[in-house]
This record gives sequence, structure tokens and C-alpha cells, in this order.
Amino acid sequence: MGVIVQKYGGTSVANAERVKAVAERVVRTKREGNDVVVVLSAPAGMTDDLINRAKSISKKPRSRELDMLLVTGEQISIALLAMAIHELGEEAISYTANQVGIKTTDHHTKAKITSISTDKIKHKLDTNHIVIIAGFQGVNDNEDITTLGRGGSDTTGVALGVALNADTVEIYTDVDGIYTADPRIVKNPKKLQEISFDEMLELASSGAKVLHSRSVELAYKNNIPIHLRSSFSDELGTIVKNEGANMEQTIIRGVSHSNKESKITIEGVPDNPGIAARIFRELAENNINIDIVIQGGGHNQQNSISFTVKEEDFVTAREITERLAKELGAKDVFTNENVAMVSVVGVGIKSNPGIAAQVFEVLAESGVNIDMISSSEIKISCIINQDNLNTAVNALHKKFID
Amino acid sequence: MGVIVQKYGGTSVANAERVKAVAERVVRTKREGNDVVVVLSAPAGMTDDLINRAKSISKKPRSRELDMLLVTGEQISIALLAMAIHELGEEAISYTANQVGIKTTDHHTKAKITSISTDKIKHKLDTNHIVIIAGFQGVNDNEDITTLGRGGSDTTGVALGVALNADTVEIYTDVDGIYTADPRIVKNPKKLQEISFDEMLELASSGAKVLHSRSVELAYKNNIPIHLRSSFSDELGTIVKNEGANMEQTIIRGVSHSNKESKITIEGVPDNPGIAARIFRELAENNINIDIVIQGGGHNQQNSISFTVKEEDFVTAREITERLAKELGAKDVFTNENVAMVSVVGVGIKSNPGIAAQVFEVLAESGVNIDMISSSEIKISCIINQDNLNTAVNALHKKFID
Repeated sequence: MGVIVQKYGGTSVANAERVKAVAERVVRTKREGNDVVVVLSAPAGMTDDLINRAKSISKKPRSRELDMLLVTGEQISIALLAMAIHELGEEAISYTANQVGIKTTDHHTKAKITSISTDKIKHKLDTNHIVIIAGFQGVNDNEDITTLGRGGSDTTGVALGVALNADTVEIYTDVDGIYTADPRIVKNPKKLQEISFDEMLELASSGAKVLHSRSVELAYKNNIPIHLRSSFSDELGTIVKNEGANMEQTIIRGVSHSNKESKITIEGVPDNPGIAARIFRELAENNINIDIVIQGGGHNQQNSISFTVKEEDFVTAREITERLAKELGAKDVFTNENVAMVSVVGVGIKSNPGIAAQVFEVLAESGVNIDMISSSEIKISCIINQDNLNTAVNALHKKFID
Repeated sequence: MGVIVQKYGGTSVANAERVKAVAERVVRTKREGNDVVVVLSAPAGMTDDLINRAKSISKKPRSRELDMLLVTGEQISIALLAMAIHELGEEAISYTANQVGIKTTDHHTKAKITSISTDKIKHKLDTNHIVIIAGFQGVNDNEDITTLGRGGSDTTGVALGVALNADTVEIYTDVDGIYTADPRIVKNPKKLQEISFDEMLELASSGAKVLHSRSVELAYKNNIPIHLRSSFSDELGTIVKNEGANMEQTIIRGVSHSNKESKITIEGVPDNPGIAARIFRELAENNINIDIVIQGGGHNQQNSISFTVKEEDFVTAREITERLAKELGAKDVFTNENVAMVSVVGVGIKSNPGIAAQVFEVLAESGVNIDMISSSEIKISCIINQDNLNTAVNALHKKFID
């Protein structure tokens, strides 16, 4: 029998009716002859509710205690699903991450899974059980409870898929797949049947928050396909898998965007090659990701560095930058919170050198000024003014996909 | 430094303000020079809410999964209290029962603590931490999560007190002590300054549900005093301790009652000495406690057995009794759900042989018929009609205490 890992998000287990619906799907999968391992998120809204409880006590609760608090949501989900499956006449057993030895690094609220001991899970699968595991959580070497960051249950699902050598990892959510653009911006985006791991990673890093990035990296590294689909329908969703000969040939897979960008510019940086490294190392130590960076792109000055960070990291990033600018003798720091990022993603970009020029032309024709540009083998991203975001996304979608 | 264990009940941690108030009391105790271990219940209402969630999925959820679900409430409490203590500038760390090795028997929803490993707790106390532990929960040898039954956090508190050789266990609740009778029935009962373990056990078993009985047994066995007090005031409460020469001399410590009794009578039992044992063994295997039993006390028949059980056990007890009655060739089973139990409790009873007679006289003078009687060295209990309960409790309180 093949092992299937099914991960269900918070909206799929939001209330008793939905938990029962999940139980039915799980039992159906089991009765089709599969060994089924289920990974669950907390019921929708519960994690936010718990965070609010913490915030009503402490503005900045320590991360160890926050983790202790937050993992309760998933534990509630797994117990309820086990009960619902029992009602349908199948054997099921729930486990916390600790009980199945999901070990992680020490980094509370952003821990990474280091190992999973599969003995207990395999024994239960062998004795005809559906095994239900709390997502998002782990334990460090000190037996403290850790969490994997928001969306971390996806990563739990894929990590279990890897550890159990699963045929596939199904990630059930409230959307039915990955689209060529955000439906809130583009009127009729297309649902993708499949997408490569590379493309998915670029989409995720450029604003399409469908799957936890780490889960995609892990699936990529171990070549386990992820089937992203809706728990509210039986339709197939989007399969994220290795780029293969049989993958549909398109140049641009999708257009993604992020309107939660902020730009920071340091002007008058002394001519010292270590400065950028110094700034970015300190940002990295604070777990702040840089989206785009350009050296020499400031106004009036050659010696400038500009970069963008996500909105939620802006305050910390500005503090760090201002402090270092002073220390390093830079002239000034400017910020702009009114920027957005638009990206086109597709494996075809690497074999079509003209794509970048087409992107710039389309934006220019639409009256959209480009502030910063960054490109990888399979992605071209532009920082633009937030007011132009809708125009830019629609223009690029029309050009490359419609 | 002495170790003090403080256990706070659900109303004491019901919301952010109350958690902060608990933090202040804990920190004060710490700053007075004590090592402090805190045991917490779930926020008031949460356990019921979780049970309702389970009930909306399964009428009779399996106990393993129910335990998995219910322990989340305590885990929320401990994380929030740790945060609140950090805000006050003291070091604190929260632990689940699993993390500090609170091992229990296998009996889900009614497990008993078998051992606690204190290394981690002692190490944290030695490094100036306040240690916060989730009450009510444990783990069995299989690493499954167990619970100790409703009120079980009291037992966690006392068990930790025993394991850590604490000076005292303080149990904070929403009442400020133990009274000579239920204030909802008797107008002005007196608060007791102290009470012996024996008396407390008899009060608890006869209806006064202030402390989890197992917690009192454990404190008694290990001679650790329990200080029961209110978390909403600084007044001293009631100290439960070994009966000593310095304990205030009274004959009757209090009047307790239970209006949740049901009576079951088996008529026409064949003359076979093993029958009562057979019935009571089977009830015990189902965790049903008998409150009062009388052989030969039925109406019309010499060969009868009557006993009372708590309301919540009545349906199961009746089923078992009816089945066994048939098997054993008994004539009939009668039940009466309209009975109550009133008891007087006091160590003075054993040295005052006339007390029983006085109890019967007082009830007779008040027009209360006695259906069944049971007495121990320090307790006299009568089963009466529920309608007479108020009259009986007040008459006994007036006679022996006022």
C-alpha cells in the first residue's frame, strides 16, 4: 500500500461540520487502499485568538512561551478529527509532534525540522490506523515545544511525506489550486494544472502566499510531488513537481505581486566593500529577508544601497539600518513605504532572453515607472509605486498569459 | 529556602486581568524568599467548551482522544502566566506534565499519578525561576496523554508538594475556605480555620466538593498541610492538616449534603453470601462509588440490598444491577432518584457515643424521615427525601454548630 499524507488547513477544520467532512475524505482515501497520515492546522481563527490572549498580557511575549501557547490549537484539531473518524468506523489515533519525535532546531517561532522518528507512525499504519499528527509544532533537544512559523503545517506535511517515503502529499486549503495571478486583481486568471518546484518557490517568494516556502523546498529536495487542492470540492487542484519533459510548455507560468514592500536607501556610503555585507548580515540575524537589493541605485549619489523588505520587518530593518549608517559614516537613510513588487515567473524565461525587455516595454506602455529591477533565471521582479500595482499585474497577465 | 506550591483554579485564570493578579501574588511569594512552583487549571469555562466541541462530533468520544483535547486548556494557562510573570521582571518557565515527567496509570480521564521526576523543576528553582506546571494532566508509560479527572489539578499540586518536599500547598479558588455548611442552604455558616484530613475526606465524600479527594488523601499520607484560600483576597483560608493536640476542639466540624444521590434496591436476593460482592465488584470495575449500602433494608423482604450512587453514575449502575439481578435470580430491582444525603462530620464523634442518637432526634423533631443510615468513626450520614434536605441541613447545623 502507498502512503498518502493529507494536510488540512485551518478553514478545513474550523468547526464540527468541517471536521466531519475532513473525516469523510480521509476515510474514503483509506478505504481506497491507502495508508493515510493526516496533518492538521489549528481551527481557523484560533491561532489569532491565542496571539491576542498573549498580547493582552505582554506586548512582546517570549517566544518559548508563545510556542507553548500556540501549539494548543493544532492539538485540539487532531483530537477532534480522531473522534470524527472513530464515528465513521475506522481506527485513528492522534499524536502531538513530541509523541512522534518531530525534532527541530532551537529557534522558537521559526524552528526547522531536523528529524522525525517514524517507528510509532509506521506501527500504527501497519495495524490499520489512520495516523493524525499536529502540524506546525516540534520539540527541540531540550524537550521544549517549538513552532515552525505561520503556515508551518505545510512543512510538517511534507517532512512526514519525506520521512515516510509517501507517494504524494496533498495539501487541502480553501483555494482550489494555484492561479496565474491573484483573482482579486486579475479578472479571470487560469488555474494551473501543474507547476515546477522552482516556479512555485519564485511565486511564493514574490508574494503568492499559497504554500509555506520551506515545504516546497523540502518537497523539491526530496522530489515528492505536492498536490494543492480544495477541501471543499473533489476537483483536482495544482500539482507542484519536478520540471519534466511532460510538463506543459509555457514561458511565463504566472504573475505574482506583493503590495507589502518597503524600500530603504542608504546614501553617501563610504567606499568600503564590506558595508553591504555588514548590513545584510545583521538583518539576517534578525530573520529579515531582503526582497530586492541594488547598489549604486540611489538618487544624486553613486555610493548608495537600496533594498526592499516586507512591511512587517520594516520597523526593525529601519532601526538597524539607521544605527549602522551612523556607525559606518554614511550620509543619510531614506525610506519609502509606498512601494509594491510585481513579478513574472516561468521556467521559459531562462531560454528566452527577450522576456525582460518585453516586461519593461509592457510596463512602460502602461505608464508604470520601474524603480528597481531584480531577476533570477526564472523570475523578473520590478519594484513600482503601489498605486500602479493593479495596472501592472493586469498588463503583464494580458501580455504573457491571456 | 522553603518550597511553596500554589495551585490556582479556573476562575483565578479566567482572563488576562486575573492572570496578571495571579502573577502578582506568585511574584510576591517569590520575593518573600520562597521557591515557588505554580500549578494551574484551564481558564474557567474552557474545559466545558472543549467537551462541547467533542460532543458536537461524537456522543461518546474515546477517552484517549478526550484527554488529548482537554489538556490544551491548562497548557494555555501556564504559557500566559509565564508571560505575565516575565512582565513583572521575574524569571519563569512553563512545563506540561510530560515535560516534567508526571507519570500516571493508564486509565484515561481518571488516571492516577505514579511518579514525578523533579530534576528539571529543582534545577530551575535553583537558578531562580518560578516553575509553572499544567495541572490535571500526565502521561502513561506509552507516552499517551492522560488526565486525572475533574478537579485533578488539586492532586497535581499536592503530588508536586510531596515530590518537592514542600512546606505547604496553597490551593487558590473562588471560595475563601471551608465552611460548616453550604452557604446556599444555611444562612450564616462559619468559616473553619482548620480541619483535619480525616474530616476533610469525609466532608468531600459526603458532598462538599471543595477539594479533589485524591489530593487530600495524598496530603494526608505524606503529612503536607493544604491551605485552601481565595485568590481574590489576602485573608487566610482553611488549613487542612493532621489532627493535632492544638486543633480547636469541636465535636462536629461541619454539616455536608449531596442532593445528587440515587438509590437502587434489589429485592428477593437468593441466600448467597457472594452476591453483594459480585455486584459491588462490577460497579467498582466501572469506577462507580457506592455512597451507602444496607443489606436487609428493603421493604417487605429480608433478602434485599439497597445502595446509593451519585446521579451521574445512576444509569450505568442501574444497567449493571438489573443485568446481575437477572443472572443471579433476584426478584426485582427498584430505584429512587429522589433521595439526598445529609451528613455530620467531626473527629469528636468517635469519643461521643451519643451523637448518632442526637442526629436522629433532631431529624425526627424536624419531621424528616430517615431512609438509610451509615456511619464511620467521624461521620454520620442519613439518606432522606430530597424535599427535606434544606430542613435537615439547617436543623443539624443549628443543633451542633450555631
